[in-house]
Amino acid sequence: MEEIACPGFKAAGVAAGLKKNGHKDVGIIFSETPAAIAGVFTKNKVKASCVRLCQERITSGKAQAIIANSGNANCCTGDRGMRDTMELSALVSQHLGINDEAVFVASTGVIGVPLPVDKIKSAVPHLIGALSENGFSDFAESIMTTDTSRKIISRQGRVDGKRFTVTGIAKGSGMICPDMATMLCFVCSDIGASPDVLNKILSRAVDKSFNKITVDGDTSTNDMALIMSNGLSEIELTRTSHMDAFQNELDVVLKGLAREIVKDGEGATKLVEIEIKGALSDEDARLAAETVAHSSLVKTALFGQDANWGRIIAAVGRAGIHIDQDRIDIYFDNVKAVSDGARSSHASAEQDATRVLRKPEFTITVDLNIGQGSAAILTCDFSVDYVKINADYRT
Amino acid sequence: MEEIACPGFKAAGVAAGLKKNGHKDVGIIFSETPAAIAGVFTKNKVKASCVRLCQERITSGKAQAIIANSGNANCCTGDRGMRDTMELSALVSQHLGINDEAVFVASTGVIGVPLPVDKIKSAVPHLIGALSENGFSDFAESIMTTDTSRKIISRQGRVDGKRFTVTGIAKGSGMICPDMATMLCFVCSDIGASPDVLNKILSRAVDKSFNKITVDGDTSTNDMALIMSNGLSEIELTRTSHMDAFQNELDVVLKGLAREIVKDGEGATKLVEIEIKGALSDEDARLAAETVAHSSLVKTALFGQDANWGRIIAAVGRAGIHIDQDRIDIYFDNVKAVSDGARSSHASAEQDATRVLRKPEFTITVDLNIGQGSAAILTCDFSVDYVKINADYRT
Repeated sequence: MEEIACPGFKAAGVAAGLKKNGHKDVGIIFSETPAAIAGVFTKNKVKASCVRLCQERITSGKAQAIIANSGNANCCTGDRGMRDTMELSALVSQHLGINDEAVFVASTGVIGVPLPVDKIKSAVPHLIGALSENGFSDFAESIMTTDTSRKIISRQGRVDGKRFTVTGIAKGSGMICPDMATMLCFVCSDIGASPDVLNKILSRAVDKSFNKITVDGDTSTNDMALIMSNGLSEIELTRTSHMDAFQNELDVVLKGLAREIVKDGEGATKLVEIEIKGALSDEDARLAAETVAHSSLVKTALFGQDANWGRIIAAVGRAGIHIDQDRIDIYFDNVKAVSDGARSSHASAEQDATRVLRKPEFTITVDLNIGQGSAAILTCDFSVDYVKINADYRT
Repeated sequence: MEEIACPGFKAAGVAAGLKKNGHKDVGIIFSETPAAIAGVFTKNKVKASCVRLCQERITSGKAQAIIANSGNANCCTGDRGMRDTMELSALVSQHLGINDEAVFVASTGVIGVPLPVDKIKSAVPHLIGALSENGFSDFAESIMTTDTSRKIISRQGRVDGKRFTVTGIAKGSGMICPDMATMLCFVCSDIGASPDVLNKILSRAVDKSFNKITVDGDTSTNDMALIMSNGLSEIELTRTSHMDAFQNELDVVLKGLAREIVKDGEGATKLVEIEIKGALSDEDARLAAETVAHSSLVKTALFGQDANWGRIIAAVGRAGIHIDQDRIDIYFDNVKAVSDGARSSHASAEQDATRVLRKPEFTITVDLNIGQGSAAILTCDFSVDYVKINADYRT
């Protein structure tokens, strides 16, 4: 595997003993020079102390380090939770010799159990000693929970003959749903940008990526996407054309990570795009796409490789949007299974649809045929393993 | 088993060959005299032809027969679907010698497959020949789909020394969710009431029963609750005290059926009441109760007998209601697991909560501690078998 890096950044990941299996569970990203930072956070009204701290600190627009742990969300842990978060931040800032306010903290894992902060504190010197330009893989590993694979994507872009890098790391396989920031995602770049510009570009990229995926409709208390940029590329995002170039690369990175997250959805065996078109509005289309993508009955049928479009049309019918049931068409990839709200008269439609369902990736398109509104969302199936993973999560 | 009857009504159920396993799949209820009728129907915007027909006919307030089939929903079957529904109705009215408009039709089963109407037509003479005062059990059996047991409850009440009977039959184990009429439910009574009064009382009873249960958050295209009353008891619902007496009995019948439906939820191993109190409003409480009750992560944890209250508080946090996370208390039956938004400091809380989770039935109470609003909803867990049942439903 090619080593992934980003100029001016170092990263590391080690095992501090939070995960029972001895896997890496604490990671750090360090910018050698002060960086600009922007972030998007969960919309859940129950928030972990680390989310509260990051939301406070991000108003300064400046950062130099992110410490993240898996195995414990440090959420609903009372006053002690915030004390633990701040203690970790202070320790990291001392060891790195940077301002405490420049340290950001992220946690993911079980809710309601006090953070074993002593274990992390013991690991911090080792963690900081391990910082390396090639440490992103270790970092990515250290933030995994039920993920089965590391999620890192790095891209390079070019502007006026100068090169810039965008490196993104993410985790998350259950509790993924639109209308939240995301799971955990950290992006490093050597672009030069003000926090305001970074924030605008990040929000757009999140809307096109993490806000268009769903695994189980649940949303977490700890989710955040942070981007740090250090300006080493000597490209300053002041012109629209430069912003567009950076937006493009960031979009590719976040869309790719979003796709990996759904593909790695807990127990998932299928990656399915739900596309709604012909709705009265984009908002109607979005509601319908989410209702279909969240339906347990639809998702279990996807697992069963069953072209059970009745469940899809029933989900559209309860989405609370305007429809004319007798005008609805439904496609599995390009196989038209439903025409004017009833089974396609094409003799082989059912067989052809079933063939699509057997593929690991496909698109379900619902054309409401009453307007111009459209939306798409990426989802996965709902498998026996999803239940097993989530019934046994804490044990 | 004691035979269940209702004065003036006969019922029957036979196998017409719609179900592959040869089980009963067509049933009929017949009122020997013209009855008053009221009904509540699915709010899904995709509706089966039988729902459309019943909604039209119910405006007359009069009925004398209901024919119901399982194994096929006759939904999204185009013009042919409505023709099939009307043909069945006509055949039943001819055989019974009653007005066509007095026949109501209900179907449940797979969506999008044309109704094998010839099979049902062949069975109608046999079905009508089988009509009997003691035929309610057969009828209840004939409307089962993934249900594992018949659902019938009969109650008698007394007013001014006169007796009245309320007999309810229901089906439904998946696709159960509030904000819809219900799955299929048919009630017979010998009470005397105008269709308007019946409708008011039925709506209230449905709000207290079927609209307070959820299995998987999906809602069907075919759901309806119908009540027929023939007046044979010689009790006329004109006085408030009589109406209250009847409402009480109907409430007990529908609540009992609702409970049986959740208990028989597809693959369910737990019957769990989600109670929200201390919300700013009843509406806020209802939203929170539904979000918790529908959360796949909560439901899989219930299956795993895991007192994972982090998932409960996270669901409350994304319900879109006003909360103060540091004031939330959570109980499993009377075990306080969460106090002021954090794990209870009581040493045995986790163990005690786990003991509750091992029970087949229990209550989860979330006290938001910020107001007087409350709501409760009955739900079940999400098991490996739920996925298996729904992955293989059509095969």
